[in-house]
Order: sequence, then structure tokens, then C-alpha cells
Amino acid sequence: MNGAESLVTTLLESGIDTCFANPGTSEMHFVAALDQIPGMRCVLGLQENVVTGMADGYFRMARKPASTLLHCGPGLANGWANLHNARRANSAVVNIVGDQATYHRPYDAPLTADTAALAGAVSAWVRTSQSAADVGRDAAAAAAAARTAPGQIATLILPSDTSWDAGGVAARALPVPSAPSIDTFAVDNAARILRQNSNDVLILLGGECALPEAQALAWRIATATGATLKYEYVMGRVSRGRGRLPIERVPYNTDQAITMMASFRHIILVNARPPVGFFAYPGKPSLQYPREAQIHHLSRIDQHPEVALLALAEALNAPAVDMPPSEPCPQIVTGTPTPEGLAQTIAAVMPENAIVSDESISYGRSFYRFTHAAAPHDWLSLTGGAIGDGLPVATGAAVACGGSRRVISLQADGSAMYSLQSLWTQARERLPCTTILLANRKYNILIGEYENVGALPGPTAMSMLDLSNPDLDWVRLANGMGVEAAHATTLEQCADLMKQSFRQDGPFLIELLI
Amino acid sequence: MNGAESLVTTLLESGIDTCFANPGTSEMHFVAALDQIPGMRCVLGLQENVVTGMADGYFRMARKPASTLLHCGPGLANGWANLHNARRANSAVVNIVGDQATYHRPYDAPLTADTAALAGAVSAWVRTSQSAADVGRDAAAAAAAARTAPGQIATLILPSDTSWDAGGVAARALPVPSAPSIDTFAVDNAARILRQNSNDVLILLGGECALPEAQALAWRIATATGATLKYEYVMGRVSRGRGRLPIERVPYNTDQAITMMASFRHIILVNARPPVGFFAYPGKPSLQYPREAQIHHLSRIDQHPEVALLALAEALNAPAVDMPPSEPCPQIVTGTPTPEGLAQTIAAVMPENAIVSDESISYGRSFYRFTHAAAPHDWLSLTGGAIGDGLPVATGAAVACGGSRRVISLQADGSAMYSLQSLWTQARERLPCTTILLANRKYNILIGEYENVGALPGPTAMSMLDLSNPDLDWVRLANGMGVEAAHATTLEQCADLMKQSFRQDGPFLIELLI
Repeated sequence: MNGAESLVTTLLESGIDTCFANPGTSEMHFVAALDQIPGMRCVLGLQENVVTGMADGYFRMARKPASTLLHCGPGLANGWANLHNARRANSAVVNIVGDQATYHRPYDAPLTADTAALAGAVSAWVRTSQSAADVGRDAAAAAAAARTAPGQIATLILPSDTSWDAGGVAARALPVPSAPSIDTFAVDNAARILRQNSNDVLILLGGECALPEAQALAWRIATATGATLKYEYVMGRVSRGRGRLPIERVPYNTDQAITMMASFRHIILVNARPPVGFFAYPGKPSLQYPREAQIHHLSRIDQHPEVALLALAEALNAPAVDMPPSEPCPQIVTGTPTPEGLAQTIAAVMPENAIVSDESISYGRSFYRFTHAAAPHDWLSLTGGAIGDGLPVATGAAVACGGSRRVISLQADGSAMYSLQSLWTQARERLPCTTILLANRKYNILIGEYENVGALPGPTAMSMLDLSNPDLDWVRLANGMGVEAAHATTLEQCADLMKQSFRQDGPFLIELLI
Repeated sequence: MNGAESLVTTLLESGIDTCFANPGTSEMHFVAALDQIPGMRCVLGLQENVVTGMADGYFRMARKPASTLLHCGPGLANGWANLHNARRANSAVVNIVGDQATYHRPYDAPLTADTAALAGAVSAWVRTSQSAADVGRDAAAAAAAARTAPGQIATLILPSDTSWDAGGVAARALPVPSAPSIDTFAVDNAARILRQNSNDVLILLGGECALPEAQALAWRIATATGATLKYEYVMGRVSRGRGRLPIERVPYNTDQAITMMASFRHIILVNARPPVGFFAYPGKPSLQYPREAQIHHLSRIDQHPEVALLALAEALNAPAVDMPPSEPCPQIVTGTPTPEGLAQTIAAVMPENAIVSDESISYGRSFYRFTHAAAPHDWLSLTGGAIGDGLPVATGAAVACGGSRRVISLQADGSAMYSLQSLWTQARERLPCTTILLANRKYNILIGEYENVGALPGPTAMSMLDLSNPDLDWVRLANGMGVEAAHATTLEQCADLMKQSFRQDGPFLIELLI
């Protein structure tokens, strides 16, 4: 058994059976091992940020890690931005990065780079295997590191000789460290705060609080105490729609976030972090909550929020309650697209159990708010602010669900151009992905940010903020990658095309001029 | 004057008048300053690897640095691979990376990343400005660092408050360190070797040896001594065609490289490095030259090769000679494409003073050899092995030459997908870029590498090596980004389309099925 064969066997032993890949020369023995050893589903991405973004989307739905296969430092660099997003989503990913042979590295051949430095800047765990005999053991450690709560990026760098040399030893799965247990003092403290005066208490939910079990417990606490529930802005996955709790997120806009939190004097964090602005702005504070507010940690990101919330509900003697009744499902809106009209239209036609991958950026700020009453679905957001994750996350989520759930990408055009190669993988794997490509033909978020500077953009600025001249034609781009597509200019056209896409297998793209 | 205004003024003072950009929120004050202060040409790329690759191509032709404008750690990561290639091409680039405000960084907002670590792994010079008052001074230092021989990557990280705060101070251009002077011992030593027995001497030329002046001196030495001239494999720019020296490069294939060098007992390096394999292979040596060969350094990469070669020619009393007569220019070949036939066809139709950006990978291994007798042109290669530089380098080269020279991209399909967004910039700037998209619909280089492992790829391997299912349609992809395009299946069709594209302004893409 060579090192590469021990790697494949060990990954499978550790429950990793999906590999998002863009291999190169130094990974050929791993590719050959995948040929020899059945059980790994391999999905090709035509650029590495597609590969890593798919692994992120896969984890968010499957709740177990996939592996990636990347080629040397530059391959890792190409996929780095979506690993950053995955890290901010607390997604577990095992990166396998092939690299120069141990004895070849000192010669600094052209493709030699500081792979470990790149890996270290985005991973919780990094190791470079030193020999074929180590690869199995190292791969098992990588898998355990990735699975360590709440989910981590683990990067295993494999010099090519550690793959091709004989002496590989497959390793068994390592035990994954348990999540730290809940702090009873934190529970008692939160109960004390909530018993005093709940009107000024915000319970800020993060991470896995947005899955159904924790939601129900949070609602039980809020009903018993009158405290306010919000999600933090960055949420990797929110289970929502009818039958789930319609919890708003802290707004992206820092003024709105500050206004939203102004009346609270206590913020109880449940797997969330103290809210800070996405960016700093001149004259505005970094922290979005009032100076006089006290921050209380009920549970941290590596703890089980449903355990903490259950303990708190019991400490409060909060009785079991039904989830609140949902609003009626919105109807299809007709005419010229507006953000609210589009959101209602999407909510109206969304099939049961859909997955929404939201990278709608500026246009979609209200999409979330107007889709609470849609059919039950999961909502995946851009977590780390590195644009270009919407299409890959959608693709990986579809892979995770084996094609059984429709994925809807709400996708801005500027960020779509970062990883448009995802569409090809959607076509190749015949994934049930419907992309609503929101074509405003500008970096609209930046035009808003520019205006915050205090002026309207002049010609030089607009040359960097405007995406027209020439207009992108997303129907042709999608067709060029084997994805069926159509233009829409009205909401009813968009609704018809969405419904049509839901009836057929495989991907579809709707370019909606907004 | 705020920090951003001092930055723009200082860059212009330092002779940097072109900015390849993909800005974000933290760069809006820089964008606003560009609006206020005339003189900087700004060119937008829709993904950062396009931005950095354009800066590389720009330097290779302009021989002076451009700046890039990138957004935070992930923006730098997205452009990292082409900075790696630029580093291997010894291209000077000044990266401006906007980042979180100094006082906001401790809060670890979602888009916070270890920007300095990313920068350090690819840059010769990195600095993070600490206040608005420092920005001008730091920008002048960055420009001088980039211009330091042979050309370097300099990265200036600007926390957003250093841009927007008042107190900016524009700085004058700093003196650029002189290149180290030539070592007379090295010249005497090389002359001694060449006088002894030139049949077993290889003069290996790198870097700027491939510009016309050094070429002529190298030919003078070779004519006087009988020594063999070769270029190293990695060459950022080679001036060639009729009237230039038809020097071959060391082959990419390590067996061929070893064979080529087997008879040499002395290798004189002129701005070149001892030849090593691009990758290691089981049972093959890393070093491609014979163990018994002696390596002699005439000049290093940061020295002026034309000074070293002139000193050597004079030490040898080598008389001035004419360049060798060129072979007749090849004729257009007809029928089904072959690598040799396509190379001859390109040579036949290539206009005077063209620029070739070669990322043809496996199919194009013989393109270089069959185009020596074309009209005079410059040949730009993939230097660092990180695929996806061909189209951006072509785009930046066209910007550098102000549209006065036709740029021909010889572009493989797999690597083209890495940075296809370049086509949009070509259309927006109406650049005279003709892309010959070589569609073999597979990662053919990897299929060859796989077969080196000792077997034919099975279905799992082919799922990661084959780019069909679905086929990419490059005419639609180009059209989708505003670039006129056509399919060709024969060499005469390709020749006709090339000639047609040379007569018109702006870009054109030919998808050639090979």
C-alpha cells in the first residue's frame, strides 16, 4: 500500500466519502488510489474556489466533512477565500493539498510556495506528512480535527513522495473530542438576568441555534420571559419557513444594527459573538451594542446550544409551547422587480424543503425578512464576506442532499462572476440548482459605500464600480457551461421560469434584470 | 489631505500611473482619491487573479510596475496565484490591499483575516501602514521595493482608517537601489572555461537575457567559442522572431531536459538558476544536469546580464557578429489541427510586433520551436506553474502597450477557465487581444502524468481529468462577456479568423477544436 492508498482508505474509515477536487501533477497518485479503492464520490470543480465553496455547502447540509483535493500552494490560494467563508460558517472541511516531494522542495522549483503559511492563515489544524508511513495517521488526525466542534478547517499537506512511496498504513478513525460541557454558572446567571427584567434582554443566537431543536427551546424561553430573540448577522444555516421561528438577523448596516440593539441592557449570547460591525466607518463605533449593556455568555461556539437552552428553559421552569402560527404564505407579485416583490414571489413558489443559497448582497437585504412564511427551507448565507461563495455553496449543498432537495441561488451578478465555473459542475452532476441571477450590472454595495464617503462617484470611480460596458449576458454564460437559462424582466416571468425549473432535473439559471 | 490622497499622489510621483483594481468597502477612500486626483489609469478586473495577472503582464511589457487594488485578505488570496507567477517572472508589482481599520481589527469582524501572512508568502516586501501620516512614505517605499532588481512583489496593507484619516503626507519617489555590479572573478572564470573547451559548455540564459541587447552579446560569445546557448524553461518574456536569436528553452519534460543537458560538463548561468525539474518523479533525479557538470554563475538574477555578457565578450576578445539569418517564415497549414501545423499557421499570419501570451500547456509544447521564423514578437510564458495566467497576462500586456501591439493568447481550455473573467476586461477596454482557445476538453497534461503513474485512468480518475460532459462552449462564454468569437475546426478557418481579428479593433476569441 502506498501513501495515497492509505490516505483514501483512512478517509473512508473516518466517514469521509465525498471529495471535491481540482487535482494537479502532484496529486496523481491520490487520483490513482481513488480509481483503485471504491467508495469516494469525486466532484470536479474547474477552479479551486469552487472546490472549497462546495465543501462548505456540503458540510452545512450534511453536517459532516467532505475532503477537498488541491494542487500545491497556488491551488490552495485559489480556494482560500471560500475556506475563509467556511471557517466563519464553522464548517468542517478536510483539505488535502499535494505538494513538491520532500527532497525536491529545497530546489525551489517554479511551483514551490509556502503552502504551510497559506494553510495556517485559514486552518485550525495543519500538518505536512513526512513519509508514506505517516499519511494514514495524519489523515485520521485531520478528520478528527475537522470534526472537532463546532467544525473546523483541517489541512493536510502531502509532499508527492509521501503519496507514491510504499509503506502506507491505513488508520482507523480517531475519536472526536467531545464538545465542552455547559457551564452551570452561565445557565444560572442567564436565568437570573431573565427573571429580573426581560424587556431589556436580547438573546442573541448563533451557529447551530438556527437548527429546529434549538429554535424550539429558544422560543420556549422567550415565551416564558418576554426576552427578544435575534440571530447574529453571520449565520451559516438557518432552518426556517412555516413551522419554524421567524427570527430576524442583526442587520448588516451598522446604523440599523445599533438602532436595533439600542434598548437592550443585557445580551445573552448563545453560540454567538458580541455584535461588531462588518467594517469600521469614520465616526461610528465598532461595537454595535450599547456601552451600558452587559454581555453574558450562555454557551460558546464549540458547545451544544440545545443543551444550554434546555438547561436554561428548565432553570426558568419555562413550560413547553407550540411554535407561533405562521403568517399566510405570500402570493406571486407581478410587474417590474422590486426586492420585496421578488422575495414574496420566491416565497410563493418555493417548494417544500428547498435550500436557499443567498449571495444577493445589496439587492437582497430584505429577501430574508419577506420569506419567513414560505414552505420550510434552509437558508445559507455568505458568512465571511469574501464574495463568490453563493454558487459553490449551492452546488455543494445539492451534492450533500443527493439531489433530493431543490437549491435556489439568490445571486448578485458581481459576486457570481467570482466563481461562475460552479455552473459547469451543476450541469455535469445534473444538480437541482435554480439560480436567480440578479443583474443590476454594478457593484451596487460599493456605490452605496462610496456615497457614504460623502460624494457621488465620478468617472474614475464608476470605472471600478460599474459592470456594464459591456453588459454580461448570463444566459450565454450559463449555456456556455451546459446550463439551460433564460432572461426575465418581470416577476411573473421569473415565477414561471422558477416553477418550470423545479419540474425538471438539473440546473437552470434565470437572469433577472433588476 | 487624507491618507488615500497621499497614496495616489505618491504613487504618481513614483511613476506608477496604472492601477488594476477590484476594490471593496475598505478601499472606497482610495477610489474617491482617484476621482479627485487625475493621472491614474484604472482597469477593473472581475476577480482578483485577473487583476494581479494583468499587473504581471503589464510589467513584462512596460518594464515598470503597475499597482493593484485588492480588498482584504480574501481579495489578496484570490489574486495570490498570479502574484506567485509574477514573482517567478521577476515582475515588479505594487499591491495595495485595503483592510480593517486599525482599531476595528481586534474585534475579528467576519472579513478579518491574516492579510500580512498571505502577503508575506508571496511578496519580497510587506508593510502595514499604521497611520495616515505614514501612508505616503510607505507607498514610496513600496514602489522602490517593487523596482528593486530584478523586479519584486511589494505589498502595502492599508487599514481603512489610514486611508480616511486626515494628515496624509505625499512622498517623493525614493531612489531605487542599483543592481549589484558584475563580479570580475565570475567573468574571468567564465572566460577561462570557455577558452578551454567550449563543446561541453552550456551557457544558460535567464531573465532579461532574452531581450534583444543581451541576445546579441550572447550570440557574439557563442560564435567566438562554440558554446551552446539555451534559455531556462521559465522565461517571463522572450524577444524573438526574425532578426532575433532562435534559442531553445530547456524542455518542461524532465527526461528530455536531462537528455538535452547530458553532454555538458560546464554550465554557465547568466541570470539563470541551476536547472531542476518542475516536479519530482519516482526514480528520477531532481537536478536535470549531470552530476559531473560544474555550475558557474556569471551573473545573478538581480544583476544586469547585458553588462556581464559584454564583459565576457570583451574578455574573450569575441568580435562583433551579425545575428544569424532567419529561416523562411512558415506558410499557413490547412486541414485538421496538429500542434506543428497550428504553430506554423500562427507564425505565418502573426503581425509585426505581436505579443504572444502562451498558456497552451500540453498541446503547445512545440509551438515555441515552430515559431522562431515568425515576424518579430515577444513571447510571454507561464512562469510559476499556477495555471490561469495566460488571459490576464495578455490583457495587462495589451494595456501596457496602449493598444498598439496585437496580443495573441495561445490558451488551453482547462487553464482558461481559471480566469475567463479576463475576457470582459478585454472587451471593456477594447484591447487588441486575439485568443486561440485550444479546446481538447480535458486536463491533458494530467492524463499524461497519470499514465506516468503506470496505468490508464479509470472512471473515477477520468471524472477529475475530463472536461467534457458538458462541453464548454467558448463562443458563448466569450459572447457572454462582450467578446466576439467564432468556432474553427480546421487550420485554414483558424488562419482566416486570426487575420480577420487583426484587422479590427478590440478582442476576438477563436475556439479551435483540437
